[in-house]
Amino acid sequence: MAVFLWKNLFQTTKGKILQQRRALLYNGAHEYDEELIKKKLQQFAGGSVNLSKEHSGIGILTLNNSRLMNAFTGTMMLELQERVTELENWKDGKGLIICGAGNTFCSGSDLNAVKAISNSQDGMNMCMFMQNTLTRLMRLPLISVALVQGKALGGGAELTTACDFRLMTPGSEIRFVHKHMGLVPGWGGAARLVRIVGSRAALQLLSGAHGVDPERALHLGLSEGTLSSSDETGSLEEARAWLSQYTEGPASVIRAVKKVVTAGRELPLEAALRTEKDVFGTVWGGPANLEALARRQKHK
Amino acid sequence: MAVFLWKNLFQTTKGKILQQRRALLYNGAHEYDEELIKKKLQQFAGGSVNLSKEHSGIGILTLNNSRLMNAFTGTMMLELQERVTELENWKDGKGLIICGAGNTFCSGSDLNAVKAISNSQDGMNMCMFMQNTLTRLMRLPLISVALVQGKALGGGAELTTACDFRLMTPGSEIRFVHKHMGLVPGWGGAARLVRIVGSRAALQLLSGAHGVDPERALHLGLSEGTLSSSDETGSLEEARAWLSQYTEGPASVIRAVKKVVTAGRELPLEAALRTEKDVFGTVWGGPANLEALARRQKHK
Amino acid sequence: MAVFLWKNLFQTTKGKILQQRRALLYNGAHEYDEELIKKKLQQFAGGSVNLSKEHSGIGILTLNNSRLMNAFTGTMMLELQERVTELENWKDGKGLIICGAGNTFCSGSDLNAVKAISNSQDGMNMCMFMQNTLTRLMRLPLISVALVQGKALGGGAELTTACDFRLMTPGSEIRFVHKHMGLVPGWGGAARLVRIVGSRAALQLLSGAHGVDPERALHLGLSEGTLSSSDETGSLEEARAWLSQYTEGPASVIRAVKKVVTAGRELPLEAALRTEKDVFGTVWGGPANLEALARRQKHK
Repeated sequence: MAVFLWKNLFQTTKGKILQQRRALLYNGAHEYDEELIKKKLQQFAGGSVNLSKEHSGIGILTLNNSRLMNAFTGTMMLELQERVTELENWKDGKGLIICGAGNTFCSGSDLNAVKAISNSQDGMNMCMFMQNTLTRLMRLPLISVALVQGKALGGGAELTTACDFRLMTPGSEIRFVHKHMGLVPGWGGAARLVRIVGSRAALQLLSGAHGVDPERALHLGLSEGTLSSSDETGSLEEARAWLSQYTEGPASVIRAVKKVVTAGRELPLEAALRTEKDVFGTVWGGPANLEALARRQKHK
Repeated sequence: MAVFLWKNLFQTTKGKILQQRRALLYNGAHEYDEELIKKKLQQFAGGSVNLSKEHSGIGILTLNNSRLMNAFTGTMMLELQERVTELENWKDGKGLIICGAGNTFCSGSDLNAVKAISNSQDGMNMCMFMQNTLTRLMRLPLISVALVQGKALGGGAELTTACDFRLMTPGSEIRFVHKHMGLVPGWGGAARLVRIVGSRAALQLLSGAHGVDPERALHLGLSEGTLSSSDETGSLEEARAWLSQYTEGPASVIRAVKKVVTAGRELPLEAALRTEKDVFGTVWGGPANLEALARRQKHK
Repeated sequence: MAVFLWKNLFQTTKGKILQQRRALLYNGAHEYDEELIKKKLQQFAGGSVNLSKEHSGIGILTLNNSRLMNAFTGTMMLELQERVTELENWKDGKGLIICGAGNTFCSGSDLNAVKAISNSQDGMNMCMFMQNTLTRLMRLPLISVALVQGKALGGGAELTTACDFRLMTPGSEIRFVHKHMGLVPGWGGAARLVRIVGSRAALQLLSGAHGVDPERALHLGLSEGTLSSSDETGSLEEARAWLSQYTEGPASVIRAVKKVVTAGRELPLEAALRTEKDVFGTVWGGPANLEALARRQKHK
């Protein structure tokens, strides 16, 4: 028992970081009923969300509902949540690419599901369900890229903002089309978009609801690069190569890098500094650090 | 009575958002005496601040004190506060253009008023009065543009930063001239400028006190565009056309867009996400949303 | 005694600002033992950190350990802390240039010191010691520039982010090389880098660990300008001229400008607005302001 307690104390700092990362944005205290919304979502079936974990430490998450340009059905929302849990438990993971099947990204929500839950309470619950999942996705200790082929519309555009980076294929488009549906983003897309492109561009993109092509996205900082392939296999290959320049190295270090940047962008300065110190403590004197020091010694 | 209570509960969420928006930055708790400063300001009369609310949902706010390049007299500060209250109550409003009469923007404060309140207590009260007004202006659920013709100097430059966007006419200038008056901004211009152009550019603009022409403003992100007309009527017409691409659509939706972006730029991420969810709840299943869903259904 | 108390009350506002500025990020409450780490650092001697305070109000801080490309020994860390204290007490100071001796900037930490403190507790203490110092450096009421000649590597790259601006000489390089040492930044470099270049570029710089040349740094906003001289004396002369366009004017005003910008970049909007009001109160009706008003009066 004494050992157990001591261990608890010892792990407090790391534990706190982990806990924060896992804490849900919404729970019972927010009038959020997860079981209820899960039952509702279960009724709108179709499509799938698939995950392939590659040896390189890069995961490929694919939205698959080609009948509806990969629009989210209810069961796809549930599967996305499961895949995110799987990614949280993947200790060797370093990177993540999110893409759509059939060479298009995602057209938002399946309108059949949407109409069925158009009352306020269900809508809010769905919104909180997706915000919980996408916030966890954004905070994964993996460097993530949305590979935008074809169209990323509405909720699909919002999904891209939960990734660290966006790469676009020629002719593709990101479009916050919500205004034309009488809506604003509700999956956290507005809050995250402001952080990516600034509040002025975000206000223009949301109130104008215009499509953003690769060139404009690059200019706004909404995209990191335009790929040369526009076919499905070629663009995925390119995205993998682009990402691997950042995921090369020990998982512990790459994951620590993502954690300090996450803290830097989410927290006030002093809290970000303290988290940076805590994350630094997880790699300082660790295996990768000691090996690097030994290599340096040899070369002298 | 029971009905009254039930209604209160039902409106809690929307009510909270509204309340936050209306909460004043300074009140009695901050050693702020609004009645006192209003009496002082009343003594420095001249000029006017006019508001015209157009059918399109765009308001035109005009600073009018051509004798002093539209510098703020005391009564103009009081009138600005009244116009902001009027705009808060304009439920059909979607956009706002702020401009100056006589084809120039605003040269800051009327020096006569300034000298008369150069003691510390009055200065602080004036400062809090203007910060309260400009914070409310910035948080209006309207997409706002400062139309900068001629000169925007000192407090005039600060006023432009309370708008979402700035458009400049050829030959116009924004200049944070405060240093040459032995001052720094006090109407919130520094805090807002940092959020518009970043802290490095803000530090250069304030410590250099150089004029910013339309080209440089565009490069810094201090302006969204340079108009082609430089005359009063033509530039207002152009600004109106520019703004209308963002205000087209139902007022409830445009206003909701502005609210989620305001939350995104002012609040920490988690609070911004929660506000986005609340604002989403005000349009989800609302008239504009249901109409859009019905239109979609028909086209199938 | 009565006078003393009255004076205290009168100075409360200014005092609070000052106190905040002086408050340390880490103290005993954070398991931080300053005396212990100071004793450890004392054992790794070599090099020096020199400060020259010029009549113009610009200080020149020079890292001097040419045997190791100005890497920080333990005693240099201690000296940096002392120099920062000295700068905090320099009431006439307006600007600061940080540079390295021998025409190179700084290569991070001396590996001998690093290896000796590679256990976790010492590492964390060193980290907190440096974060305390660099946070105080960043908050100095001086406009600061890192003059990057040669290489700024690892901790050297982190040091540049504690300055308001960076200027680079032709052929110089900033490189967050931490990943190759099995590390992430721990001196606050990640948290500050996110605020300078945004989280996307910061993630790329830290996870890619590529060198950033002057052109790329300019594009990213990591540098404000590329100097034309690459020799030691010439580049310092150029940096001094560049900085003086921002430090020209009364010290009270220049220092107030830095304070409002510091508040703007560190604090949430409402807190930043209130600090701006407090800082405004320190110059409003002050000598520089009254002189400027008198000059205006004369010219009428």
